[in-house]
Amino acid sequence: MDFAPSPRAADLVDAVSEFVAREIDPIEDGYHRELAGVRANGGDPWTPLPVLAELREKARAEGLWNLFLPAGHEGPWAQRYGTRGGAGLSNVDYAPVAEVMGRSAMAPYAFNCNAPDTGNAEVLLKYGSVEQQERWLAPLLAGDIRSAFCMTEPAVASSDATNMELTAVRDGGDWVLNGRKWWSTGVGHPDCRILIVMAVTDPDADRHHRHSMILVPRDAPGVVVERLLDTMGFRDEPYGHGEVSFTDVQVPAENVIAGAGKAFEIAQGRLGPGRVHHCMRLIGLAEASLERAIRRGMDRTAFGKRLIDLGGNRERIAWARIQIDSARLLVLNAAWKLDEGGPTNALSEVSQIKVAVPTMAQQVIDMAMQIHGGGGLSSDTPLAAAWTAARAIRLADGPDEVHLGMVARLELAKHR
Amino acid sequence: MDFAPSPRAADLVDAVSEFVAREIDPIEDGYHRELAGVRANGGDPWTPLPVLAELREKARAEGLWNLFLPAGHEGPWAQRYGTRGGAGLSNVDYAPVAEVMGRSAMAPYAFNCNAPDTGNAEVLLKYGSVEQQERWLAPLLAGDIRSAFCMTEPAVASSDATNMELTAVRDGGDWVLNGRKWWSTGVGHPDCRILIVMAVTDPDADRHHRHSMILVPRDAPGVVVERLLDTMGFRDEPYGHGEVSFTDVQVPAENVIAGAGKAFEIAQGRLGPGRVHHCMRLIGLAEASLERAIRRGMDRTAFGKRLIDLGGNRERIAWARIQIDSARLLVLNAAWKLDEGGPTNALSEVSQIKVAVPTMAQQVIDMAMQIHGGGGLSSDTPLAAAWTAARAIRLADGPDEVHLGMVARLELAKHR
Amino acid sequence: MDFAPSPRAADLVDAVSEFVAREIDPIEDGYHRELAGVRANGGDPWTPLPVLAELREKARAEGLWNLFLPAGHEGPWAQRYGTRGGAGLSNVDYAPVAEVMGRSAMAPYAFNCNAPDTGNAEVLLKYGSVEQQERWLAPLLAGDIRSAFCMTEPAVASSDATNMELTAVRDGGDWVLNGRKWWSTGVGHPDCRILIVMAVTDPDADRHHRHSMILVPRDAPGVVVERLLDTMGFRDEPYGHGEVSFTDVQVPAENVIAGAGKAFEIAQGRLGPGRVHHCMRLIGLAEASLERAIRRGMDRTAFGKRLIDLGGNRERIAWARIQIDSARLLVLNAAWKLDEGGPTNALSEVSQIKVAVPTMAQQVIDMAMQIHGGGGLSSDTPLAAAWTAARAIRLADGPDEVHLGMVARLELAKHR
Amino acid sequence: MDFAPSPRAADLVDAVSEFVAREIDPIEDGYHRELAGVRANGGDPWTPLPVLAELREKARAEGLWNLFLPAGHEGPWAQRYGTRGGAGLSNVDYAPVAEVMGRSAMAPYAFNCNAPDTGNAEVLLKYGSVEQQERWLAPLLAGDIRSAFCMTEPAVASSDATNMELTAVRDGGDWVLNGRKWWSTGVGHPDCRILIVMAVTDPDADRHHRHSMILVPRDAPGVVVERLLDTMGFRDEPYGHGEVSFTDVQVPAENVIAGAGKAFEIAQGRLGPGRVHHCMRLIGLAEASLERAIRRGMDRTAFGKRLIDLGGNRERIAWARIQIDSARLLVLNAAWKLDEGGPTNALSEVSQIKVAVPTMAQQVIDMAMQIHGGGGLSSDTPLAAAWTAARAIRLADGPDEVHLGMVARLELAKHR
Repeated sequence: MDFAPSPRAADLVDAVSEFVAREIDPIEDGYHRELAGVRANGGDPWTPLPVLAELREKARAEGLWNLFLPAGHEGPWAQRYGTRGGAGLSNVDYAPVAEVMGRSAMAPYAFNCNAPDTGNAEVLLKYGSVEQQERWLAPLLAGDIRSAFCMTEPAVASSDATNMELTAVRDGGDWVLNGRKWWSTGVGHPDCRILIVMAVTDPDADRHHRHSMILVPRDAPGVVVERLLDTMGFRDEPYGHGEVSFTDVQVPAENVIAGAGKAFEIAQGRLGPGRVHHCMRLIGLAEASLERAIRRGMDRTAFGKRLIDLGGNRERIAWARIQIDSARLLVLNAAWKLDEGGPTNALSEVSQIKVAVPTMAQQVIDMAMQIHGGGGLSSDTPLAAAWTAARAIRLADGPDEVHLGMVARLELAKHR
Repeated sequence: MDFAPSPRAADLVDAVSEFVAREIDPIEDGYHRELAGVRANGGDPWTPLPVLAELREKARAEGLWNLFLPAGHEGPWAQRYGTRGGAGLSNVDYAPVAEVMGRSAMAPYAFNCNAPDTGNAEVLLKYGSVEQQERWLAPLLAGDIRSAFCMTEPAVASSDATNMELTAVRDGGDWVLNGRKWWSTGVGHPDCRILIVMAVTDPDADRHHRHSMILVPRDAPGVVVERLLDTMGFRDEPYGHGEVSFTDVQVPAENVIAGAGKAFEIAQGRLGPGRVHHCMRLIGLAEASLERAIRRGMDRTAFGKRLIDLGGNRERIAWARIQIDSARLLVLNAAWKLDEGGPTNALSEVSQIKVAVPTMAQQVIDMAMQIHGGGGLSSDTPLAAAWTAARAIRLADGPDEVHLGMVARLELAKHR
Repeated sequence: MDFAPSPRAADLVDAVSEFVAREIDPIEDGYHRELAGVRANGGDPWTPLPVLAELREKARAEGLWNLFLPAGHEGPWAQRYGTRGGAGLSNVDYAPVAEVMGRSAMAPYAFNCNAPDTGNAEVLLKYGSVEQQERWLAPLLAGDIRSAFCMTEPAVASSDATNMELTAVRDGGDWVLNGRKWWSTGVGHPDCRILIVMAVTDPDADRHHRHSMILVPRDAPGVVVERLLDTMGFRDEPYGHGEVSFTDVQVPAENVIAGAGKAFEIAQGRLGPGRVHHCMRLIGLAEASLERAIRRGMDRTAFGKRLIDLGGNRERIAWARIQIDSARLLVLNAAWKLDEGGPTNALSEVSQIKVAVPTMAQQVIDMAMQIHGGGGLSSDTPLAAAWTAARAIRLADGPDEVHLGMVARLELAKHR
Repeated sequence: MDFAPSPRAADLVDAVSEFVAREIDPIEDGYHRELAGVRANGGDPWTPLPVLAELREKARAEGLWNLFLPAGHEGPWAQRYGTRGGAGLSNVDYAPVAEVMGRSAMAPYAFNCNAPDTGNAEVLLKYGSVEQQERWLAPLLAGDIRSAFCMTEPAVASSDATNMELTAVRDGGDWVLNGRKWWSTGVGHPDCRILIVMAVTDPDADRHHRHSMILVPRDAPGVVVERLLDTMGFRDEPYGHGEVSFTDVQVPAENVIAGAGKAFEIAQGRLGPGRVHHCMRLIGLAEASLERAIRRGMDRTAFGKRLIDLGGNRERIAWARIQIDSARLLVLNAAWKLDEGGPTNALSEVSQIKVAVPTMAQQVIDMAMQIHGGGGLSSDTPLAAAWTAARAIRLADGPDEVHLGMVARLELAKHR
């Protein structure tokens, strides 16, 4: 149960922190204001502002690039694309790095460590063929293209993944896809080139072997991004969450990842670490929000006192500290269990943090919004977007209720 | 403690419900989709869609117009502009009417019963001179113009209203205003013609007599809407919440409402009923959200069961029912106390509902969002906007903490 | 929806309040201390202290006696035993009377309005034969005997009442009972003479017609009170909650109430009003606890301030006020629905309060204990016993979960 | 941040677990029943049942004795009285040992690791003179005598320890004590021989140097245990919480611990580890309660299903697992910070767990009580006593509010 980062990880935390302080903090508010201006004035918010490309170039030049690559799976990729130190990080080591990135809405993208590209890269890394890796993983890690993940569907309760209905039917050397996905994160980005699509390929197989993961080029005929969805009024540029229709979309048979019927295995392999990464970043987001709350409470005066000294405000600060520290330890524990024995060793722990961390973050950020008054709900602070991120993760990659069910099932199993 | 509506109010509830079912329900989703399209395609969302004007015309023709006019204050205005039955409603009578309107985001506007125009109309009705009423109240009640209320300021903790700093200095027969307001609700509407602005007019007076309420035409030179703020990504078209600068704005001395130094008295008189109206509408919003949650839970299937029958969902439905019914009774009680003895008779009760009702609504709507999955956070349902409305009211017209302080103060006073 | 008490009820509230202030308040703390002394010194706490009999005599002399008798069911009984005004009270009228009684642990007994005797009397009043009424109801209303209700069983999940297993087998003109009950409230009292026992009389009938309610004299051979249970260390003298074994207990066939197979009908008829009475009294208990919390918080000083002015204490007071007022209104609403249309008209409302009110009371009293420090947990204040009473009612007469299930079921039924 | 126990600690966890399973589990229920019988039948519950002495003898013989002795402070004492392995344990190492003990109400006493004797022993170990150690520490560690700690007073808000008023006045070679304490834990035990009493010795010194800690023999003339207090109806035999009066109690000057004016320093040194020990044991108590809840839920049937499969029960189990694991990690973190840098290194962490852990335990145990039905509130299960223990610790050694204030103060200090 050693939760301390290795020396290399500690150095990376310092380097990332220093980069964020030097390059991102001074411009982050301006970035969001500029983006808001583009939106308000009818501009195209989906074209990334130039500053993003500049940041990415600097980060890559400093080797703060693809740090998410997991120990033992990074192969030659880490070196090829300039990850500082070369090898991948354990989960315990990546946790504090991801926390620092999570404090900023811009940072994960700057470091090429943003969802959904990280998860998609991991799928290709762990399950892709050499050809698939050269074709799609290489440019993803290089930062030349972006990707999307297409699993959830609008017509069914997607919390039960066996419900997914989009079909891929074999036609000679091709698969032909028909159906509709939504919450396909990443399709809004102009550089999005590849979609990983979950499709029914064998409706007669048992429930967990009916589906396959298929690589579909974004520009394949029949792929239409019908619209980009908002969450609480935000649209999460430059990634975006799309509703995507697939009409007689043809892709070669070799675009199936790891063989037909493997969708569930891949989804679990992808979503497990993805959930931990989300939680790591949310710790940073909550921590940054708490700091903002305290500073605001110390700066403003009402009724002759600093806000922070009024009513129950100090108690709320204390509870936020307790909740954040508890959540961080819970995440580190899940990371450590993953490192020790892989996903099957951490089933309960990953589900635990998937429920506990966004719930915690939502509460802490709500408190921070409240102490900011009206400005806390507007885009003048990053709090409203932060709250929305936390809220969305209570649904993304499995709703709270499904993860609570998993934790309970494992708990009951101890007593049989 | 008779909370039942009078026969006239019961008829109005029926009429409003019938109107909403006939005219609004069938088009509401389409309205929001159309508006989202305007926004997404760079159109001007601040020009009200034509359907709104049509709805208002129909509502007015049926006498479902200005129903908010309070009993005893409606004078000849109710008749003049066609309020069905003519006289104003007591708070207990208006409560169920407002609840029905609150179920829909379009309805309050359709019936000319939307904030902030209702509150502004009440200010003119109770405190305005005959000239002020003819000039501004008449067209407001006719629905020909819209208005805004400018109290909160960005530079100070506005939860303590004595902090407000915008100044109005006497210059001959004029007041000259300088300063900055934000969260000035209503300034986004193209028909907005008049602002009620809180200004320091006598900095040497005691804290509660330094400020005045001054009528400032929207088109007065020096009034600039710097930007329209968002709340959680929403901008609340067609009203909007603006940041407004006032630079050497000149208005005639007679534009002060009820005399200089009366701002606090007027603010209390305006905000009291306003808070109750907000709460009445939120009851409707929570009720409509609960209904959506149940229908969704009964329609969708996961893991072989209806969503509603999984895990703790039924318990959540039951708690929502309990919370809504409790909150409605609490609002009715506050309304009844207001009717019995006016605002000073209901200080605790109004503060109680101002805290309890948005908190309840926020929880119920959050539950409804969760059971809807991703769609619950997007604009595909009205839930995200509804949550935002409830969340915003935890700050608008006094943050929770100020109202809890008032309830506690009155409670302690019983023991002295 | 008129929740105001009738003039007669208002007079009774005044009279009961005046009686409590005059006769009970001055001696209540002493009573509890004396009882604690009896317990600590190995005395018999089950023999009621003489002061109780004196109080009852005074209350009866003033006609503050059997006020629980429900309007429309009181027949000649109210007059016969001296209920002031003679006729029974509606639920709305009894609510504030019961609230005043609920403030004190001694008062309900003093006024012959304590559970379980009230519920047992109602069973006999509504379902008993003339002979059963003369034999058992008359002395109960006279206050000459006490009674117990034996439904819950230790060996089965009694939240599902169809689980009950104690049998009564017909043997000539008799029923012969065998089985075991617990949480048989009232069997600790030395004057307890009669038990109402739920027994399986027809195991082949459908689930809701297998059981009967049978009158069993306390001194019938084979009835053994095995022990008196505690709740959180309290034993609730002088009533007590017993575990009772029945071994070949013989009672005449006419001791069945309202005919064989009617147990469920009777249980619902008994528990409905009983639940409302519990909730009414808990409102009083919470209100009295809040008052204690405020007084303590104003009296004690720490860190240079009154306790009440430290940290979040005032916010907690405010929330307690909001919660109590909400809960009272919810109880009044349930009472009004019962008065309007009987139990079937108030199924959801009664279940709502059964969940919401004890939960509220538990929270308010916990807050009051906390502000009292260590003394709040000891028997130096009535708070610990009050908390235990509230906690116990979250299980008694159906656990929260069963009532939430009922509320949800009725809610879903609106959408079919 | 290595939270794993050392090999020696892991062995001790195994040995203690094995001892508990072999010697305590089979008799614990019987012990409580026998004790309840003594109480109910007017016997003396303060004379420890013989089984306790037998358990202690066995535990000592196996070297599972005084395991609480802290690393670096145990001197020769660990060897002298047979602690297995001899040396003291770090906080991280003691945590899992204490958790196992905390699962049982009997275990801490069996292993001579129960409050308040552990804390009192630590005071003597760290601050006592050689003479004081030989006189009092030796028999405490031998298990021959018991002790009490007398700090809290009935007349003042003791959450602010500077309020304490009992005086010790110098009279020649003696101190003469006058005043009154309560919640003096341990004075109920017949072997209690020594009290550590906090007394004002220099009223003119600054607030944190007015008080001293003085050793007062239990049998000193003028020491009277006025009564033994209950918490929620429990009296915590065989320790007991007493109200103790001191009237002209004379003790020699050398009975002051560590010199006059050092009471605050000693109290902090005593309460810090004490708080951590309480929290460690509460983790075990919560864990054992969760296990009971699950077993009960799997064993009982209602409405055709296992209780555990009804409504939100599984979600409650999952949340309990999350809460316990979070709390355990928070305790381990505090223990690790203590080990790394002593109490001043862990001020926030110790206050965090002092608030978070009892709150968590209270919630988990309340859930377990609920799923047990009525039996969960009675002494048939250890749950009611467990809840009371958790509830009491929300006040003992500083109420929640004081610890939240400490956490907030340290948090704000980061921003100055």
